Amino acid sequence: KRITVMPGDGIGPEVTEAAVEVLRAVARRYGHAFQFTYAAIGGDAIDQYGKPLPDETIAVCEASDAALLGAVGGPKWDQQPSHLRPERGLLDIRKKFDLFTNIRPVKAVPSLLGSSPLKEEVAREVDMVIVRELTSGLYFGEPKQRSPKSAVDTLVYTRAEIERIVDQAFQIARTRKGKVTSVDKANVLETSKLWREVVEERMTAYPDVEVEHMLVDTAAMKLITNPRSFDVIVTENMFGDILSDEASVITGSLGMLPSASTRTDGFGIYEPVHGSAPDIAGQNKANPTAAILSAAMMLKYSFGLHTEAAAVEEAVAGVLEDGYCTGDIAGEGKRVISTGAFAAQVIEELE
Amino acid sequence: KRITVMPGDGIGPEVTEAAVEVLRAVARRYGHAFQFTYAAIGGDAIDQYGKPLPDETIAVCEASDAALLGAVGGPKWDQQPSHLRPERGLLDIRKKFDLFTNIRPVKAVPSLLGSSPLKEEVAREVDMVIVRELTSGLYFGEPKQRSPKSAVDTLVYTRAEIERIVDQAFQIARTRKGKVTSVDKANVLETSKLWREVVEERMTAYPDVEVEHMLVDTAAMKLITNPRSFDVIVTENMFGDILSDEASVITGSLGMLPSASTRTDGFGIYEPVHGSAPDIAGQNKANPTAAILSAAMMLKYSFGLHTEAAAVEEAVAGVLEDGYCTGDIAGEGKRVISTGAFAAQVIEELE
Ligand SMILES: CC(C)[C@H](C(=O)O)[C@@H](O)C(=O)O
Ligand SMILES: CC(C)[C@H](C(=O)O)[C@@H](O)C(=O)O
Repeated sequence: KRITVMPGDGIGPEVTEAAVEVLRAVARRYGHAFQFTYAAIGGDAIDQYGKPLPDETIAVCEASDAALLGAVGGPKWDQQPSHLRPERGLLDIRKKFDLFTNIRPVKAVPSLLGSSPLKEEVAREVDMVIVRELTSGLYFGEPKQRSPKSAVDTLVYTRAEIERIVDQAFQIARTRKGKVTSVDKANVLETSKLWREVVEERMTAYPDVEVEHMLVDTAAMKLITNPRSFDVIVTENMFGDILSDEASVITGSLGMLPSASTRTDGFGIYEPVHGSAPDIAGQNKANPTAAILSAAMMLKYSFGLHTEAAAVEEAVAGVLEDGYCTGDIAGEGKRVISTGAFAAQVIEELE
Repeated sequence: KRITVMPGDGIGPEVTEAAVEVLRAVARRYGHAFQFTYAAIGGDAIDQYGKPLPDETIAVCEASDAALLGAVGGPKWDQQPSHLRPERGLLDIRKKFDLFTNIRPVKAVPSLLGSSPLKEEVAREVDMVIVRELTSGLYFGEPKQRSPKSAVDTLVYTRAEIERIVDQAFQIARTRKGKVTSVDKANVLETSKLWREVVEERMTAYPDVEVEHMLVDTAAMKLITNPRSFDVIVTENMFGDILSDEASVITGSLGMLPSASTRTDGFGIYEPVHGSAPDIAGQNKANPTAAILSAAMMLKYSFGLHTEAAAVEEAVAGVLEDGYCTGDIAGEGKRVISTGAFAAQVIEELE
C-alpha cells in the first residue's frame, strides 16, 4: 500500500511522524508492506512551492492508496490573500479528489471525562459519528463573489450529491447502533427541503435504520444537553463544520479525535481534528493520539484492515489506561510523556 | 404606550398573559398608561385567518409602539406547505418591520447552575449578549428555489446591512464589558470577508470597545469550553440562529431567556427564546420568566424605561431567590408553583 504523508504545519510533522511509526509497526506485526511518500501542503507548501496545494502533492496523492495529513495553518500565513492561505490547500484537495464524505467519530474516554466542560453524567458514554458532506454547499457554490457594496455566497446541492452522502451515513449506521439523525434547516432553506426529501427516499432502502430529522439549531442544543442521544449525524458542509467542532469538545478529548475524508473507491485523507497548535510546535509534547487514530481509520476505511485498525485502537486505549498521557490531558495520577515516547508505548503495546 | 400582544401557540398564551399582568403592575406602580391590543400569529393565525401573518396583525403592529410575542408552532401545523407554517409568520413579521437586530442575553442564574449540562465552574458567571442579524443572509437571499434535481439558497449581505447590525453590537457593548466578538467564516465565505472588513472599519468609531474576530466553528467550541470569555457576540443570521440556540442551553436556564427583535426607531418584538412546548400547553405550569423578562426588555429598548425594566428584573430575581419556581427548574428546596402564581409573586415583589 502506498501512503502519502502530508505533515503540514505546526505540530503536524510531529504527530504524523508518530502515526507513521505506528503504521510501520502494524506492517511488521501483520506482514504488510506500506510505502510512505512525503508531500507538502498548507503553509509548508506555500513556503516551498508558493501555493498551498502544489501539483507535486496532487501527483503524489494520485499515485497513492491513502493519505495521512497533520494539520495546516499558523500566524505566519494569516495575512495572506485567501488563495495563498494554508486552509485553501485543504479545501482544494477535498474538491480535487472528490472527498465528499467527512467522518468524525466522537467517543467519550472515561479517564478524560474530568477535562470535559460538560458534567460527567452528560458526557459519559457519548459515542457518535458525524458524517459531513465535504465538497459542496456554501463552501463551493457559485456565484461566490464580491462587489464594493455587497458579497454573495451560494448554497447549492444537487439530489445526487445528497444521495451519496446520505447513503454513506446509512451504511455507517448499520455498523453501529442503527440510528441516523439528519440535520437541516428545512423550515427556512430550499436546499434543506431537498435534503429532507432525499433522506426520506433513501431511508426506504435501509429499513433497519431508524431516522430522525432535526433542525440545525435544535441539534446545536441537543449536542450539549443530550449528546448520548446521537448515533450517526449526517448533514451538509457548513452545518457539519459547526456541529462537528461543537461535538469535538464535549468529551474533553479534542486531542484524541481522528477524522477521515473519503470517497467511494477507498482513497481517503486521514487527519486529526485538532489544529496545528503553533504555540507548542517542535517541542515533542503534542498529543499524537488523534493522528494515530486517524491512521487506524485509514487501515479500516481505505485498506479494509479491520483487525489491524482495532489493534491500534486497543493499543492506544491500553496506553491511556496505563496512565500515560501528553501534557494536554495531564491529570492526577497520570504520567506525562513526550509525543515520541507516547508513540513508542503504543508500538510496544501493539507488539 | 400601545402594545400589541401576539400570544401565538402552545404555551404562548399563558406566558404572554403572565407578562401582560406584570406590565399592568408596572403601569400602576410607575404611573404609565399601557394599552394592549391582541393579534394572531403562527398556528393561531392559520386557524383563524388561513395564514401565519394576517394583514390584521400587521395593521395592529403598525399602530403600536412595541409587541409582545408568545411562541409559535406545534404538531398540528407540521405537515403544512412552508408558506402556511407557523414559523413563516415569524420570518415575515421580522422582514415586514425590518427588525434587523435580534438581541439575546444569556446570563447564568446561580441557583440554576445545577440544571446546566456544563460543569458549574464552566457555566458560572456567564453573562453574554448575542446580537444576530435577522433580516438578511441565507434566510432571505434570492435566488431561493427548487428544481427537480437541485436546490439553491443564496447568502447575500450588503455593506449597509452589515454596518447597521455591527453598530448595534458596538453600542450594546458600550453599556456592558466593552468587548465585541464578531463571528464569521472569513476563511471560506465572501460574505464573511466583507463582514470582517466592515467590522474593522466600524470599530474605529468605537475605540473604547475591544474587538475580536472568531470563526464560527471556533465559536461553537468556545461557547462550551469558555463561555465566560464572551461579552457581546455579533454575527449574521444563520450563524446567529445556531450559536444563540447553542448558548441558550449552557446555563441551564432556557425557560428564563428573553429576546428582542428591534430596529432603530424603537419599535420591536419581544419574545421568549423557548418554543411553544405543546406538550404542557394549557396546564398553567409553563415558566413565564422568559416572557416577563422579554417584557422588561421592551420597557428598556422600546420605551427607554430603564428603572422600570430593572425593577421587573429584580422582582423576578427576588421570586427565584425566595425559592419559587415552575416545574421545569424544580429542584431540592424549591417550591413549584403555577404560571399564574409565579406572575402573581413577581407582581407582589414589584409592588
Ligand atoms: C480550515 C477550514 C476551511 C475547514 C473547514 O471549514 O472545512 C476546517 O474548519 C475543517 O473543519 O476542516
Ligand atoms: C422558527 C425559525 C424560522 C426561527 C429562525 O431560525 O430564525 C427560530 O429558530 C428562531 O431562532 O427564532
